[in-house]
Amino acid sequence: MVKLTPNASYSLAIRLSYPNQVGMLGKITSAIAQCGGSLGDILLENQTPAGQVQRQLIVDAYSGEQGEEVLEALRQIPQVEILEALDRTFELHRGGKLHTQSRIAVKSQSDLAMAYTPGVGRVCRAIAQDPEKVFSLTIKSNTVAVITDGSAVLGLGNLGAAGALPVMEGKAILFKEFANLDSFPICLDTQDTEEIITTVKHIAPVFGGINLEDISAPRCFEIERRLSQELEIPVFHDDQHGTAIVVMAAVFNALKLVKKALGDLKIVINGAGAAGIAIGRLLKQAGANPEQIILCDSKGIVSESSPHLTPEKQEFATKQTGSLADAMNKADIFIGVSVPNIVTPDMVSSMANSPIIMAMSNPIPEIQPELISDQVAVMATGRSDYPNQINNVLAFPGIFRGALNCRASSISSQMCLEAASAIASLISSEELAPNYIIPSVFDQRVATAVAKAVENTARN
Amino acid sequence: MVKLTPNASYSLAIRLSYPNQVGMLGKITSAIAQCGGSLGDILLENQTPAGQVQRQLIVDAYSGEQGEEVLEALRQIPQVEILEALDRTFELHRGGKLHTQSRIAVKSQSDLAMAYTPGVGRVCRAIAQDPEKVFSLTIKSNTVAVITDGSAVLGLGNLGAAGALPVMEGKAILFKEFANLDSFPICLDTQDTEEIITTVKHIAPVFGGINLEDISAPRCFEIERRLSQELEIPVFHDDQHGTAIVVMAAVFNALKLVKKALGDLKIVINGAGAAGIAIGRLLKQAGANPEQIILCDSKGIVSESSPHLTPEKQEFATKQTGSLADAMNKADIFIGVSVPNIVTPDMVSSMANSPIIMAMSNPIPEIQPELISDQVAVMATGRSDYPNQINNVLAFPGIFRGALNCRASSISSQMCLEAASAIASLISSEELAPNYIIPSVFDQRVATAVAKAVENTARN
Repeated sequence: MVKLTPNASYSLAIRLSYPNQVGMLGKITSAIAQCGGSLGDILLENQTPAGQVQRQLIVDAYSGEQGEEVLEALRQIPQVEILEALDRTFELHRGGKLHTQSRIAVKSQSDLAMAYTPGVGRVCRAIAQDPEKVFSLTIKSNTVAVITDGSAVLGLGNLGAAGALPVMEGKAILFKEFANLDSFPICLDTQDTEEIITTVKHIAPVFGGINLEDISAPRCFEIERRLSQELEIPVFHDDQHGTAIVVMAAVFNALKLVKKALGDLKIVINGAGAAGIAIGRLLKQAGANPEQIILCDSKGIVSESSPHLTPEKQEFATKQTGSLADAMNKADIFIGVSVPNIVTPDMVSSMANSPIIMAMSNPIPEIQPELISDQVAVMATGRSDYPNQINNVLAFPGIFRGALNCRASSISSQMCLEAASAIASLISSEELAPNYIIPSVFDQRVATAVAKAVENTARN
Repeated sequence: MVKLTPNASYSLAIRLSYPNQVGMLGKITSAIAQCGGSLGDILLENQTPAGQVQRQLIVDAYSGEQGEEVLEALRQIPQVEILEALDRTFELHRGGKLHTQSRIAVKSQSDLAMAYTPGVGRVCRAIAQDPEKVFSLTIKSNTVAVITDGSAVLGLGNLGAAGALPVMEGKAILFKEFANLDSFPICLDTQDTEEIITTVKHIAPVFGGINLEDISAPRCFEIERRLSQELEIPVFHDDQHGTAIVVMAAVFNALKLVKKALGDLKIVINGAGAAGIAIGRLLKQAGANPEQIILCDSKGIVSESSPHLTPEKQEFATKQTGSLADAMNKADIFIGVSVPNIVTPDMVSSMANSPIIMAMSNPIPEIQPELISDQVAVMATGRSDYPNQINNVLAFPGIFRGALNCRASSISSQMCLEAASAIASLISSEELAPNYIIPSVFDQRVATAVAKAVENTARN
């Protein structure tokens, strides 16, 4: 039932040596294809006078095991020797993904006297006398901290500070690539709410904004709320609001296709963590009927009779009780930020007409799109190999670009809503289609549009 | 008595417009010279058909006031119009001095799948399973935090976190320039010893080393001691050990010139802050006679009868009492890390034969070199416009380069001593002279030699 396609996250660089004879390369490529590997570049590295040829082949797999099968199949071909097989994802991470760089040359005594002592002392004094100047004379106004405690790394759970660092580095390079923001990863060696708050406040002076990342619910809510109150720079928990903004953008466009109004809809959100709660809140802010939003957690519908509800779940608790299947009956939209394969085709067929499914568990969605392609009006996932990828990269670079451009002191829910509208409106009514409700992450208009929406909201 | 030379820390970029006539440029340059301004580049920006010429002139001054005098003198020249006058140090700081940069391109879905989700999750899991891998698969092994609480910024006092940021950015770019280390500034919004320690421990996971900077004594001693004990990465307070290493290197070479042995010397250290204490400790470690090291603070000789001694001052307290002048009588070396103009020529003439003076108060030394040039065997300062500049840039890049290269868990005093020897030994016996006891900060051999000394010590 699980269908995975080969992709670059399991990509191998395989260096082979074999006799330069007719048919050899054909045998090699056939063996790879028969194992389900996806062949990318084939490079010629060397041809020896003795008639040997060396090539490097890029092969995408869909799992580590399948990658091994490809290698085993190659080993079985007579006269083919595997010189090296590198995991490209690990190779790319070697030494880390982020560098720092000086914006100025330091090649002479003059350079040193201006950039460092004694000249720098004049700049320090100017800032101490007028604290506002830290925004113009230092990196602060263009620098975002990406901060985690490693407690909820992707869907992988509590991997700790060091285990979270590759994600934070990745986030930092995306800030640079998509919004030209300088960003630095901070992985905290504590998972205590108060200690996190205190630490982030202590290190805040260098930063123009704080992006919280991969902090588990419900601590993430308190941490973000307190930091937003106590710091004068914008604080944004991307797992909440980044996801909510992009879901909201997709919902806006999906509703245009099915010709329904947000206020009329029955909406099921499966997953009551950071993302689920924030999506529910933003839907309400956008005009969804609070009575018609059903939040489910691993035990089913979050209802007023459920024991031990966090304050955030209480916000969404309904009189209704039951299972996810009960919740989905007659629903217009299903929004999944939960676990693989939790939704069945029967549940989908119990929904209202023209159902919209956003199954964002990643890499394996709540239901495989192929199983319900005939039943749904619109389908979105978190994956890049299906249409309508819900990806936070559409939101967070522009959000911070806009907030830092206008020196906003916080990110309001109205900014999030305007950002969602801005993303949605990049797709014209002519282009809009069930397979195209959300722009590509590489659509260069996105970050600018989001930033502008944030700035306009801040100024109004 | 105070002599300052024009330098780049007070450099102006002056844009002028004047009639293109014989003698005009001569009048301009003469006016600048008569005010004591130092003329650098003269650039032609534009020549109009109407016979006007626009030029940009770079003029170094020795103070802000003197820069104003230069501008006023230019305004007095008939037909010369000042179009713009920019303070180059401030211009250079606009927007900050440090950027982050992605080491890899993120231009396609494949790039994204490897550098970010879902591929990055495999790297995160690998680190969570084997924490050692954080050194190979993230930025940690090449990244140094430059951390301050802003309590003792250069010689300017307690400027706070934001006021310290330009220095920390400067330090970060020097790490990059001189040792190819990635470095990031952290300015703490607390000056409480325990909170600093806790905060640094919480943010340590991302870093391969911690450079403490501009934290006032005596808190700096406790903070460094505790962090060194409690973290498994090297912690180094540059104001202490960076200064001590370079002073030690200069002492080694100065002693070759005056043909004295370290163990025989009477040494006066004026200034009992971070640098003074560390210099005294490293001198002892190198073989100086503890009985013959006299530490002075603002009240004179630190003696056993002085009230309220910190533990660090107690280490150096002697039976002797008296003033700085008393201390300097018959001394072989004076080491000043204190305040301008505190030493008189008479004090120097009371010293032993072939006295060595290191007057490192910056930019105005404890005594102006011109006043005692006939009396001293060797003179060093902290300034780049006199011979023998004692500059920490000679030490800290190589110290961390070496420590990170070999994954040292701490920086020992033996490493500091070997680093000092390595710096000293770059000057051959043929080159060694009273005006050349320490290499230039731009001597490219320095960081490598220091790093190698640290690595060799770590391995022995």
